[in-house]
Amino acid sequence: MAENILENSILIECRDAVESAIESLVASSMNGPYAPAMELAREILLAGGKRIRPVLTVLAFDLAGGENREEVMDFAVSTELIHTATLIHDDIYDGAKLRRGVQTLHEKHGLDHAIIGGDFLFVMGFGIGGCYEERIVHIIAETCASIATGELKQIRHISDLSTTPEDYYDIVRGKTAGPFASACECAAIIAGASDDDVMILREFGMELGIAFQLVDDILDLTGDERMGKARGTDIHEGKMTLPIIHALTLLHGDARRNLANVLDEFRDDRWDELQELLEQGDSFGYCRMLIHNHLERALSHLYKFPQSEVRDVLEAMTRQVMTRNE
Amino acid sequence: MAENILENSILIECRDAVESAIESLVASSMNGPYAPAMELAREILLAGGKRIRPVLTVLAFDLAGGENREEVMDFAVSTELIHTATLIHDDIYDGAKLRRGVQTLHEKHGLDHAIIGGDFLFVMGFGIGGCYEERIVHIIAETCASIATGELKQIRHISDLSTTPEDYYDIVRGKTAGPFASACECAAIIAGASDDDVMILREFGMELGIAFQLVDDILDLTGDERMGKARGTDIHEGKMTLPIIHALTLLHGDARRNLANVLDEFRDDRWDELQELLEQGDSFGYCRMLIHNHLERALSHLYKFPQSEVRDVLEAMTRQVMTRNE
Repeated sequence: MAENILENSILIECRDAVESAIESLVASSMNGPYAPAMELAREILLAGGKRIRPVLTVLAFDLAGGENREEVMDFAVSTELIHTATLIHDDIYDGAKLRRGVQTLHEKHGLDHAIIGGDFLFVMGFGIGGCYEERIVHIIAETCASIATGELKQIRHISDLSTTPEDYYDIVRGKTAGPFASACECAAIIAGASDDDVMILREFGMELGIAFQLVDDILDLTGDERMGKARGTDIHEGKMTLPIIHALTLLHGDARRNLANVLDEFRDDRWDELQELLEQGDSFGYCRMLIHNHLERALSHLYKFPQSEVRDVLEAMTRQVMTRNE
Repeated sequence: MAENILENSILIECRDAVESAIESLVASSMNGPYAPAMELAREILLAGGKRIRPVLTVLAFDLAGGENREEVMDFAVSTELIHTATLIHDDIYDGAKLRRGVQTLHEKHGLDHAIIGGDFLFVMGFGIGGCYEERIVHIIAETCASIATGELKQIRHISDLSTTPEDYYDIVRGKTAGPFASACECAAIIAGASDDDVMILREFGMELGIAFQLVDDILDLTGDERMGKARGTDIHEGKMTLPIIHALTLLHGDARRNLANVLDEFRDDRWDELQELLEQGDSFGYCRMLIHNHLERALSHLYKFPQSEVRDVLEAMTRQVMTRNE
């Protein structure tokens, strides 16, 4: 049933509209003075990301009673530009080789080009978003400042085996869920929704974003070729994801010592050992339960709006985050 | 005489106002959710930059008839935040060890912190600048896109001995003079100046900015401890500055071959050789003449405004760019 709805014409139409808005932005930049910078940035921008943020933005706008999608499209594009900028910069210090299935900018063109390419997309995103009312500009700036702060906190907890679930949630709210929340919030503001509806959509985005990151964390441990990046990226980088944090908290004695040792000296031939320890603490089960809870809360926010075709599509997208993990 | 005017109370008052606006922004951020990011960024932000862009902004606002400096102060601060963001990112790929006399972020905290610290200041700058009218937001975005494009062009001309003076001017307009021009332009817009006065101040900023970069290029070759960075940074990086481009164009035969060889295989024990070749082509003389011309043009734009205390201060600042190089 969910799959049928995800072939719904509203969703396809929305994705196509987002894609063509991004493509036309790229095309017009390629004829202007910033062509050298856009030439670089478009390699990642057009490499076929999932466009979750801008699609969510447009659908939230519809749900909040927005009528003319042209009003929200620039903002939707800006969410994807800023997201792609953060990916380009993250990939540098994560040392990632692939992004969206293509070579990362720093791998292909070097550190300088990747820093500038990311900066350029930030600038484009801000420039477009900055044409909205002051309230929106504030939210964009706060969201991005929280991404930077969340990234810093994450880095400071690298290989820190005492990282708590609270630290984890603090990081995830900043770097992943915050952008989902503010995309939905701004979409509702642009649609002219009531303050209540704006907050409901913000909370919907926050819950969905947290669930999304938790699923990403599990997929990094269990592997998913569809993501266009290698399994175990987080582990190799020493990132403290929730399954790991949970296992470190729950396991005791030899099991805890073994896990600490696997994490301290991780190599690809220790995958089975790690999986076994995580299953011993039922850490995947714990995270799946949390994902389920966050998604249920996201749905409960959605249900505050009357049933409609758009709400059904948003519901199906929410449920898809859950099945992505099964 | 110029020095007396530079101790003028308007200028001191303006510098103090800018400094305290930056300090209070930092202080308020240190009590908020972005404290970890600001803690990092403030190391460079408060290390005592010259504050040329924000001071110029406030004085241009005054000259253009602005009455309440509070209207322009946020914009002035945003020019310094964005400028500092670009310095932090430039220093990474330039491999610089010192900035404003203190250790660069990437040297002290690593690549990841420096990328994020720069991103954070970009975000802060855009967030503050984004609260102005749409026209200002467009100019900020275009200025920053031109900085990125200028940086990319500069990198592509690294060690390219066929770089022309036109290439050089194209790069400098993007990365240095553009920000000066747009700071003055936006200051005039915020002051409610006429379109003519807005364009005159833009041109003033552009000429001043070009002269400023040319002086920087010469100082990098002749050395100036006041800049808080080592002599010869540009040469070691293979940056094609105008004295070098001029000498490569003017010298012939053995001298040209020697210069190409010095540049290709530059080491600190080849300084004297390089100086001699540059003097042989009178390349410093040529650049000083250009600096003089740009500053004269900057002054001619200033003189379109009636004499006033603020105009005298801007005139003295312009003339100081010239003497900085003597």
